[in-house]
Amino acid sequence: MLPTILDLSSLRAAYEAGKSPLDIIEIVIARRAASTDPAIFITPTPDEALRAEARALIERAPEPNSLPLWGIPFAVKDNIDVSGLPTTAACPAFSYQPEKDATVVARLRAAGAIVIGKTNLDQFATGLNGTRSPYGAPRSVFDKNYVSGGSSSGSAVAVASGLASFALGTDTAGSGRVPAAFNNLVGIKPTPGLVPNVGVVPACRSVDVVTVFAPTVGDGVAIRKVMEGYDAADPYSRKAVPASLPASGLRIGVLDGAEREFFGNRQVEALYDAAIGSARALGATVVPFDYAPFRQAAELLYNGPWVAERLAAVKEFLETNAADFDLTVRAIIEGARAYDAVDAFEGRYKLEALRQKTRSEWDKVDLLMLPTSPTTYTVEEMQADPIVKNSHFGRYTNFANLLDCAAIAIPAGFDASGHLPAGVMLVGPAFTDDAMAPFADAMHRAAEAGMGKDRKAALPEKCRVTPPADDVVPIVVVGAHLTDMPLNHELTRAGGYMLKAGRTDGSYRLFALNGTIPPKPGLVRDPDFAGNGVEVEVWALPPAAFARFVQNIPAPLGVGKITLDDGTCVTGFLCEGHAVIGGREITEFGGWRNFIMATSPAA
Amino acid sequence: MLPTILDLSSLRAAYEAGKSPLDIIEIVIARRAASTDPAIFITPTPDEALRAEARALIERAPEPNSLPLWGIPFAVKDNIDVSGLPTTAACPAFSYQPEKDATVVARLRAAGAIVIGKTNLDQFATGLNGTRSPYGAPRSVFDKNYVSGGSSSGSAVAVASGLASFALGTDTAGSGRVPAAFNNLVGIKPTPGLVPNVGVVPACRSVDVVTVFAPTVGDGVAIRKVMEGYDAADPYSRKAVPASLPASGLRIGVLDGAEREFFGNRQVEALYDAAIGSARALGATVVPFDYAPFRQAAELLYNGPWVAERLAAVKEFLETNAADFDLTVRAIIEGARAYDAVDAFEGRYKLEALRQKTRSEWDKVDLLMLPTSPTTYTVEEMQADPIVKNSHFGRYTNFANLLDCAAIAIPAGFDASGHLPAGVMLVGPAFTDDAMAPFADAMHRAAEAGMGKDRKAALPEKCRVTPPADDVVPIVVVGAHLTDMPLNHELTRAGGYMLKAGRTDGSYRLFALNGTIPPKPGLVRDPDFAGNGVEVEVWALPPAAFARFVQNIPAPLGVGKITLDDGTCVTGFLCEGHAVIGGREITEFGGWRNFIMATSPAA
Repeated sequence: MLPTILDLSSLRAAYEAGKSPLDIIEIVIARRAASTDPAIFITPTPDEALRAEARALIERAPEPNSLPLWGIPFAVKDNIDVSGLPTTAACPAFSYQPEKDATVVARLRAAGAIVIGKTNLDQFATGLNGTRSPYGAPRSVFDKNYVSGGSSSGSAVAVASGLASFALGTDTAGSGRVPAAFNNLVGIKPTPGLVPNVGVVPACRSVDVVTVFAPTVGDGVAIRKVMEGYDAADPYSRKAVPASLPASGLRIGVLDGAEREFFGNRQVEALYDAAIGSARALGATVVPFDYAPFRQAAELLYNGPWVAERLAAVKEFLETNAADFDLTVRAIIEGARAYDAVDAFEGRYKLEALRQKTRSEWDKVDLLMLPTSPTTYTVEEMQADPIVKNSHFGRYTNFANLLDCAAIAIPAGFDASGHLPAGVMLVGPAFTDDAMAPFADAMHRAAEAGMGKDRKAALPEKCRVTPPADDVVPIVVVGAHLTDMPLNHELTRAGGYMLKAGRTDGSYRLFALNGTIPPKPGLVRDPDFAGNGVEVEVWALPPAAFARFVQNIPAPLGVGKITLDDGTCVTGFLCEGHAVIGGREITEFGGWRNFIMATSPAA
Repeated sequence: MLPTILDLSSLRAAYEAGKSPLDIIEIVIARRAASTDPAIFITPTPDEALRAEARALIERAPEPNSLPLWGIPFAVKDNIDVSGLPTTAACPAFSYQPEKDATVVARLRAAGAIVIGKTNLDQFATGLNGTRSPYGAPRSVFDKNYVSGGSSSGSAVAVASGLASFALGTDTAGSGRVPAAFNNLVGIKPTPGLVPNVGVVPACRSVDVVTVFAPTVGDGVAIRKVMEGYDAADPYSRKAVPASLPASGLRIGVLDGAEREFFGNRQVEALYDAAIGSARALGATVVPFDYAPFRQAAELLYNGPWVAERLAAVKEFLETNAADFDLTVRAIIEGARAYDAVDAFEGRYKLEALRQKTRSEWDKVDLLMLPTSPTTYTVEEMQADPIVKNSHFGRYTNFANLLDCAAIAIPAGFDASGHLPAGVMLVGPAFTDDAMAPFADAMHRAAEAGMGKDRKAALPEKCRVTPPADDVVPIVVVGAHLTDMPLNHELTRAGGYMLKAGRTDGSYRLFALNGTIPPKPGLVRDPDFAGNGVEVEVWALPPAAFARFVQNIPAPLGVGKITLDDGTCVTGFLCEGHAVIGGREITEFGGWRNFIMATSPAA
């Protein structure tokens, strides 16, 4: 009755159709019990507690879908506090009972979402593979021999196997993206500081980010919007100013030459190339760029003083409980003792120098598109060589938080035999989180890879992501600014794009103005006139560009409100009445374009 | 013939009147030779080299004032490279011959300025007092018993005593501001990253800033604009996006309660209170704020891991030349050995937590106004207790770079006996450098303290700083948006401010519109009409606010170009012609305000 993957559109439709959160919770309980992967959860929410949560929600907000995430089940990585459940960070001796929800969990619960359990992870979120946990290694939903990816291993598998609508991860090096790639999911990695970390066990406190695993970009972005917002209790929380991207003709940076590294995995390489083709087909301009400074920044995260942040996070616990650590994790953390404060600052200097080198790459591109992980491994392969094989997974993810980027990992399809999926990742400058989402969604749809383990699922229309509308303002153009007309470039160069073509209502009259260069018409409203309307185009401009545009409109033209034939009333070009008196009326042509064509010498 | 203080306006006037850079250079040479403070320079530019520079300038740009700083003499702190002169950082054994100019020096020379010498400093820029140098201690230009302030000691004294038009300093803890206060100068401390540090000996590389000592705010800002701009070779260089401040009604944060600390100096306290009075008189709203989180951040700079940056800067030299250090400076730098990488990151966490606390203070104020230094000391007093007394000077300066602020230190007048000056400092969020300058200039003028050692000098009109015009767009209002009219708040709440009141030319007619709430007029142009014009106001709005404002104008109103009686043509409110047909013409009242007054019930 419910689809395999519990995306938001499906659940909301079920609630709209009369299902209750209690029904959904029973399905989740049944699916959880039937799960064949015993390593997904560290602490599942007990069945009775889940039912009580659903009942409490119905009491608090009886109307279906009356809260943004009304009755939506989600899983939480076990380094994020959920009151009522222990936080272990995958280290049993570290376990504690949090007094309250992490800020993000509190916000999601307030929005109606229901926690179904705490999920497994690489201990202390130190790893990208999912095998570094005493609670077992979750597996790829597509092949039990393969790693799930980590550190947010259980979270990804919970969503990809249909146990939860979404799940929270954390991402320092790539932990919110690599498991998305291995389980055919979207991984939303916000710009550092956009989503608060209060109530999260730190890995590297200065670069930790809470992430969302979701079936679609639209779902993930909607969930992130519930989570985001300044929290003064988090030293790294920031007040975000959304950054914009060009509305069309995105320049997408892609790997080139020696920086194309897939560790021999031709399947992932082929899927990356296919994604490049999709980007082109979607209208993007593909631009090879130099990944070297990004890679060098990425290498600082483990081979530099940032590892001292991991020691800072657990140093008291390590003093008393060294034997309770995963051996690989402990070796990594103990490595921090080699660094002094001078090393820490010198590491920062190196990072800042590399940041400057990446800036000249950013001058060439709007977004980067990278393989999320260049390859994957079986659990056996990983355990045989845990440091090196793990580092392969982070080749394209490790730099993102150090360099203050936003990223969205999306499915890129399956290998030729249909066995394992791979992902690609869009990476943008700080606070392009929303601006990159429409393109990420379009890329996901182009991949036709389904959602999670349901590789045939169609992506719901309802969650399609369209460009944000509130960072542009509309303007109706009538004459020389129409598409292909002489002044149209004033709109396009200012970042404008056409919203729609249409007509005014019948009360407008069009006149050819005398002596304008290039020739221009004047539109005036005459309430007593009953014509057939005038051809117009509605364009969108960023507000500051609109201001400059209007400032440059010469008399007798200006902007006022124009009523269109669909009844909407939109700001657009009008002419002062005195200027059309005695002028040639051309209303009968139906618009300026027709008039020009009818009167040009070639006509 | 030239005034005591060589401000830009005076020099440019002299050049305009026919003086040559060779004449000015001879005056500089003579003044330098006559100087009674032997500790200002470490390496003066030799007389012949100065003359050669002046001749080369005349050859390169013969036209007087044809470059932004044509023939302007300046001094450079001796931790900033000038090709041809050694860089010592006030440590003779550290001395080296730089191959090229620091970026800022190169830009200033390209703009026509002439380097007159390298100035004394607290060794390795470690100090705020000016006594930590083997080249002697420069003295306050007002009393030879008193310290000059540091670390940019020689630079401040060179400008204040009329040897140079301006001088470069550096500022990590306050070195570009404290000496300004003690020598009655303006100290321009840019936002970190605005001005590049390439070719500067680092103190704390992550928070070092090159500064300008100048006689006036206008001079200092003009010079900073020559120096600023992204330089990819500096890891901390940034591409600046100027931040704005309200154009009127600034909220100025001032010290309160226990945070008012002057170490017993009642004279400085009285001058601070007088400055608060001046701010009020200039239209600012004075708001007490909590300085505690700023102070706690300030304390981290020396009592925290940032001192490891000082060790990072000189560690190889220290290994071989420990005996060549000033004892106090060496003790400070050696203190860094106590910190490991965990301490470095934990220091950063503390700073970020304090930054969040300061954010809630910034919600209350636009700028902070603080004493630049809360007190001053004689050289003897300083040398008797060099660490503690030095720290007093930094009480209000140390936080600014750690917290990413811009600051301008300005003269605040002299103590009651006219003996020693004190300064106040405006501090704003990152990249408010330009936005705060008009208020800083107005405060300096209100202090009537002269410039440098010439305490009677009048501040030139030519260097007055007015608010930037290009980040707003004008709009002519005619009716309900006029001052004190019902919709005026739509302008003021959007950050608008009035540019001027005026009238249209005689071709406009005004009509009372039917059925508008609140009542509104409609202005239309009639080229055949010869009236007396209509009262208008020209307001300024930020571009994005203008866009939203225009989007919300209902039909039949809109905006077009309005010709004013001074011949200018400005965007403003017009009405569609059809809407005034048959309406009541009120042109004879001369404007909407007169019409309302004449027809209101009380009239």
